[in-house]
Amino acid sequence: MPNISERGVLMPPSPIRKLTPYADAAKKKGLKVYHLNIGQPDIETPPSIIEAVHQADVKVLEYSPSQGFESYRKKLVTYYEGRGIHVNSNQIIVTTGGSEAISFGLMSCLNPGDEIIIPEPFYANYNGFAVSAAIKVIPINSSIEDNFALPPIEAFEKAVTPRTKAIMICNPNNPTGYLYSKEELGVLRDICLKHDLFLFSDEAYREFCYDGQTHTSALQLEGLEQHAILLDTISKRYSACGARIGALVTKNEAVLNAVLKFAQARLSPPTFEQILGEAACDLPADYFDDVLAEYCSRRDLLVTRLRAMEGVTCPNPGGAFYAMAKLPIESSEEFCQWLLEEFEHEGATVMMAPASGFYATPGLGKDEVRMAYVLNTDAINKAMDCLEAALKVYKK
Amino acid sequence: MPNISERGVLMPPSPIRKLTPYADAAKKKGLKVYHLNIGQPDIETPPSIIEAVHQADVKVLEYSPSQGFESYRKKLVTYYEGRGIHVNSNQIIVTTGGSEAISFGLMSCLNPGDEIIIPEPFYANYNGFAVSAAIKVIPINSSIEDNFALPPIEAFEKAVTPRTKAIMICNPNNPTGYLYSKEELGVLRDICLKHDLFLFSDEAYREFCYDGQTHTSALQLEGLEQHAILLDTISKRYSACGARIGALVTKNEAVLNAVLKFAQARLSPPTFEQILGEAACDLPADYFDDVLAEYCSRRDLLVTRLRAMEGVTCPNPGGAFYAMAKLPIESSEEFCQWLLEEFEHEGATVMMAPASGFYATPGLGKDEVRMAYVLNTDAINKAMDCLEAALKVYKK
Repeated sequence: MPNISERGVLMPPSPIRKLTPYADAAKKKGLKVYHLNIGQPDIETPPSIIEAVHQADVKVLEYSPSQGFESYRKKLVTYYEGRGIHVNSNQIIVTTGGSEAISFGLMSCLNPGDEIIIPEPFYANYNGFAVSAAIKVIPINSSIEDNFALPPIEAFEKAVTPRTKAIMICNPNNPTGYLYSKEELGVLRDICLKHDLFLFSDEAYREFCYDGQTHTSALQLEGLEQHAILLDTISKRYSACGARIGALVTKNEAVLNAVLKFAQARLSPPTFEQILGEAACDLPADYFDDVLAEYCSRRDLLVTRLRAMEGVTCPNPGGAFYAMAKLPIESSEEFCQWLLEEFEHEGATVMMAPASGFYATPGLGKDEVRMAYVLNTDAINKAMDCLEAALKVYKK
Repeated sequence: MPNISERGVLMPPSPIRKLTPYADAAKKKGLKVYHLNIGQPDIETPPSIIEAVHQADVKVLEYSPSQGFESYRKKLVTYYEGRGIHVNSNQIIVTTGGSEAISFGLMSCLNPGDEIIIPEPFYANYNGFAVSAAIKVIPINSSIEDNFALPPIEAFEKAVTPRTKAIMICNPNNPTGYLYSKEELGVLRDICLKHDLFLFSDEAYREFCYDGQTHTSALQLEGLEQHAILLDTISKRYSACGARIGALVTKNEAVLNAVLKFAQARLSPPTFEQILGEAACDLPADYFDDVLAEYCSRRDLLVTRLRAMEGVTCPNPGGAFYAMAKLPIESSEEFCQWLLEEFEHEGATVMMAPASGFYATPGLGKDEVRMAYVLNTDAINKAMDCLEAALKVYKK
């Protein structure tokens, strides 16, 4: 029997799914499990965009253009324009989910063995795309004590080697919820220009910024036009994770040409979901108001409840729909498993993501968990009741 | 400005699309262009499967399971069962198009620098997936004089090196239309077992076998259970190219585990199109009868017309919907461009794919073209009128 490849071995399994068998077992026992472990929003997908799919008049379901329907890309231009991001439709390549945007971006810009600096904790699947592309992730630490702010410029300088080709950020951040300020993006611009690095900016959560803060896109950084690569997706924006529609956006023509060749090899992104994405561009301007208000009230509740628990630290997230909390425990992996296997409070328990899966440096984040506030406030309250009760009885 | 990656440079542009600007120009001049250049069927997508998408009751468009909906995989088990392929639902991983099945398969089984033997001419995008995976395609020649039959076992033996990890075939073949016999598959089995190689079998055109011939799947080869990897797609089967739904099927558990990790990193295949694929499994058993009869009559016409032209050789394709023809010209690239730029016959011209794009060995296939019989017989007749007239006046 032939062996599988090394990358097939090295490829990390999804850290989010590790505890799923325990959650399934808890449900089988009749427990209610509050899922704060995965970024799957409960928000209803706008019915008008589902309706656009239902109305789609398709006789022959043909390949669509490799870069995505022109009509969709033109509407995206207007969407970005409304966010102060000025691009034309040829600077947008529609991808199959944000995942493919990340993957095409990395393969187009980095050679096998090249390095990309990413502040940790970071979205765990970046590891998978790095293994696929045979590139090396160089983590630099952002810490819960600093609210997960951008690491200082010295940390980047120390991490740069002759193999460094890029920096990647997620803004607002998954898993920390941190929203990078304009000043922090200025630091990134300076270091990218100084060392001639690409800046990959995953802006999946752009629409979710709280407390009146505004989002700064990498594509808005003056002087960084040839270095900035925006990675986008409609998954979180419109609660359309199952659509698998994203985009890679850049003003760098050489990158666009390379990405287009990868896009041509896989032929097209899915048709019906592009129709859905195009319809989303026509949602009324106030569509995000209610969604934002809902997430904000969930965040406020979650953070208030967490901070009221003894020994728990929780920075206030400025964006996205995640919060990281430091718990008075030794191993969040063991604690999260224990919550599912052995604990219950009023017939329920809570599932969270151990934070170690988001750190590349071994040993970091062992007493931290990530929570996605993708449940309504009533469910969050009950989930926090569980956590509070659990921390009182758990023997670390 | 940072440089793009070497693979971004090496990535081959789509050979099918090279002549598109000339076709566009011809259309602008008012010419009718008969498209035999691309495998986009004109067959109507079964309305019932489009209807399944129109009826899909979706409130929150959630991530679907990384391996695809269980209900869909269970129906695929029955579909394969009907073709004499015995697998269970855990041996199927639903992919975003056949493209992703190829890409995940290669990355899971081959290390960078490893070699895969592929009889040429072959589907041009295999080159792109090989560059993405940083693996080496080793072509071995199948020739039009032999009707593109499988190269003799000696050719495989000669091509095997310590870095050889796999053989890949497309059966029935794109671009040649050749249908490998059970005996030829036996040869592949022997060589894979002898050198412990994976056998990747792209069976996108399984349903289209002519003259009462039956298709043999790699998964039907006794003794090859741990080596055979089936790459599949619904694109051609149901004229649903824009759906981007495929599958990787194997009985090798280590491969399944590795592929699942790649699948988890990209989260899910698209939701609506899985619903479409699932509905396709419920099409009546005789659905393919009409489609097959239609393709068969087109093939008969195309081959008859080509063989009636002086100096043209055209093997009779046993499957798929492609034919390769050798023309009495020196360069099919120049000829195909000339057809679009300078030729017209009764207000029309024909677009074909120069065959050199399907050969990896430089210089091969220069006087050959690939034609996809994806137009109705009337259009094929008119396209052949154009070609016949063109060959009479063309100065090689």
